[in-house]
Amino acid sequence: MSQALRFALGQKDIPTHWYNMLADLPEPMPPPLHPGTKQPVTLQDMTAIFPENIVMQEMSPERNIEIPEEVRDIYALWRPTPLLRAVRLEKALNTPAHIYYKYEGVSPAGSHKPNSAVAQAYYNKQAGVKRLVTETGAGQWGSSLALACRLFGLECTVYMVRISFTQKPYRKSLMQTWGANVFPSPSEHTEFGKRVLAQDSESPGSLGIAISEAIEDCVKSKNTKYALGSVLNHVCLHQTVIGQESIKQMEQAGEEPDVIIGCVGGGSNFAGIASPWVQRKLAGKKNYKIVAVEPTSCASMTKGELRYDFGDTAMTTPLMMMYTLGHDFIPPKIHAGGLRYHGMSPLVSHLYKLGLIDAVNMPQTRVFEAAVTFARSEGLVPAPEPSHAIAAVIDEAVKAREAGQKKVILFNLCGHGLLDLSSYDAYLAGKLTD
Amino acid sequence: MSQALRFALGQKDIPTHWYNMLADLPEPMPPPLHPGTKQPVTLQDMTAIFPENIVMQEMSPERNIEIPEEVRDIYALWRPTPLLRAVRLEKALNTPAHIYYKYEGVSPAGSHKPNSAVAQAYYNKQAGVKRLVTETGAGQWGSSLALACRLFGLECTVYMVRISFTQKPYRKSLMQTWGANVFPSPSEHTEFGKRVLAQDSESPGSLGIAISEAIEDCVKSKNTKYALGSVLNHVCLHQTVIGQESIKQMEQAGEEPDVIIGCVGGGSNFAGIASPWVQRKLAGKKNYKIVAVEPTSCASMTKGELRYDFGDTAMTTPLMMMYTLGHDFIPPKIHAGGLRYHGMSPLVSHLYKLGLIDAVNMPQTRVFEAAVTFARSEGLVPAPEPSHAIAAVIDEAVKAREAGQKKVILFNLCGHGLLDLSSYDAYLAGKLTD
Repeated sequence: MSQALRFALGQKDIPTHWYNMLADLPEPMPPPLHPGTKQPVTLQDMTAIFPENIVMQEMSPERNIEIPEEVRDIYALWRPTPLLRAVRLEKALNTPAHIYYKYEGVSPAGSHKPNSAVAQAYYNKQAGVKRLVTETGAGQWGSSLALACRLFGLECTVYMVRISFTQKPYRKSLMQTWGANVFPSPSEHTEFGKRVLAQDSESPGSLGIAISEAIEDCVKSKNTKYALGSVLNHVCLHQTVIGQESIKQMEQAGEEPDVIIGCVGGGSNFAGIASPWVQRKLAGKKNYKIVAVEPTSCASMTKGELRYDFGDTAMTTPLMMMYTLGHDFIPPKIHAGGLRYHGMSPLVSHLYKLGLIDAVNMPQTRVFEAAVTFARSEGLVPAPEPSHAIAAVIDEAVKAREAGQKKVILFNLCGHGLLDLSSYDAYLAGKLTD
Repeated sequence: MSQALRFALGQKDIPTHWYNMLADLPEPMPPPLHPGTKQPVTLQDMTAIFPENIVMQEMSPERNIEIPEEVRDIYALWRPTPLLRAVRLEKALNTPAHIYYKYEGVSPAGSHKPNSAVAQAYYNKQAGVKRLVTETGAGQWGSSLALACRLFGLECTVYMVRISFTQKPYRKSLMQTWGANVFPSPSEHTEFGKRVLAQDSESPGSLGIAISEAIEDCVKSKNTKYALGSVLNHVCLHQTVIGQESIKQMEQAGEEPDVIIGCVGGGSNFAGIASPWVQRKLAGKKNYKIVAVEPTSCASMTKGELRYDFGDTAMTTPLMMMYTLGHDFIPPKIHAGGLRYHGMSPLVSHLYKLGLIDAVNMPQTRVFEAAVTFARSEGLVPAPEPSHAIAAVIDEAVKAREAGQKKVILFNLCGHGLLDLSSYDAYLAGKLTD
């Protein structure tokens, strides 16, 4: 009989509810503030860009929020995702640690992002919205929203940072295959884009510029709303299917994790795996060590400060209480495009402030060293983002070896790297720096 | 309660044996012949390039061949693969047909190819081989063998058709990430490659040239064997895990298929899904319609003839009784690189000759129309190869609608198209021809 390596669940095990971490916080989160009045934002403030049902969810105190059947039916295309035991990595590291990973790369877009994109498209459809508009850097979120809009019959417009549009064309092609309109940003489609192009017709663009274009497009158009792929409470909420499934699967494996690890950019995949475990920690089940891993070059928690800041460069969003490097911080062009964000989800920031989670940062070359170690032992090629988590996992596993201690480690492998292979090329050619 | 859309199995449901179709053929297959003597090849002939344990398997009359535990442990990384009901495609086609698909794209290489690559690497490792050498066109097979060699600690050398090496660099990067040596073919590493380059230093290469280089490298080197990714009996055998799982999963779904469909190039993914169903057909369970779908531009069964022919252009392989367009046929440069082969697996050829399976062909633009229809209704982006199967599925579903008939269709979605997005670009830009 083979060793148990794969912990699979059936369609009936897809969670029926999302878990709302806000319901169990020992101390409430500071509210987002209106940038003009500095007063807590109201439902009315938010409905300029989001439909009311999503804003209600963003502010909901309810612990368990039912997942609509239509959303679960689409989740069934890739969920429940597998939990795997990384025995070959354990062997390569010669560690007594047991390493488990939750693998979200089986979704059609190759990452965890569709967990929220599908939910957001559903609620916008319910609210009578006809078109969603968003921005994307390397394209993980844009492609996921393109997919979700297609499945619910919504139009989708994506402002994609121009340098990615040109240099990493595959995710653009993916969005177009799913029928989205993709504009390189800065574009001629918005006043803001035109202004940027007037100053520099060769502008490579930035996420900040793309957000501004997407929001301008949204507020100027009829039946159109904006969608965000991370940071906000409702996005973190939708991702909790990851953590809930992982609890069932670790029970199947017959082990309790000691350490739970995820990478953080805006924070949604991390919140997704961590929240249900934080709930158990708060309930006294076990004092799990829960670690968020950020890039050294864009380390909002370990190098930034906790204060009210804007979510975007153009200062159009509400002020949020979060760890931030400053809304005008331009992150270096690391290959983990999904982690290039100046701030941190207010929820994840709050958990960190309360001491419920830890944070570390990892430099780019160590991240790719970890990625290649994982690919060459386990087989799956991880995306650059979760490779930050892998680097931290390896550290924990090596510590366990040195201490001669069995330790159970769980991490979220939130996406595969098949659309990021050019960054592996750069690493293998010795061209990557930190 | 949601509709049942996903039929999942656990690690314990990974088949324990491969199913050997040869054991149940109503009439034996004509043997491969030595190209010089025209006598049936012997074990000694074959062991020049394959290890003895694989040659034994190639010729085995045993019905059920045990899958080694080490191979099943690696299968557990992606197997059992899911069976899904394509309700959104059914709705898009307004058909009473029920459409099911077996999804092999969840493997680390994104296709069914690792099912055989892992088995071949295992047997070579057992035989004391240190290095495997192979050829690859677009790179599906090469990347799968690179992965498998890495997992068993073998070196891997891949001769990759130069035009793919240059134009489609992602699968090359994947092979290198897994540690393989990848040479653009024709190369300076073999006498044959040098000869081709002397005649044309800009040669784009071909699969025929790459095979010749790989075989030359193999026979000239110590502790080195050759591996093939399709066509041969043992490769078809390894792929039968697909069909066996699909039988269990259709039982879970509570339906018997009327029609079973797969694409064919060399024939291995088709043989993999079809063989276990052919066994049931021969046992009188049901008269399944089993359809192999080939590209119109490279249609060995529907346009070629059944005769002894070489497997490669350079006439170095044994003569095999198969449907062929001639070993010197140069297939047009269609985007389904995996189907660009002049011949057909002798096993699949034999099943066709015996009338146990049907064959149709599909032109490239219809294939991509089907691919986009599938991607936009179901969400998953199919590779160009299985999109041939999808085009045939759509035909069957439309016929069912016209006849007002419920029909149950099962097909093999043998890989995703995330490394083939440039061909989607070409199609969406109206640049594809038949």
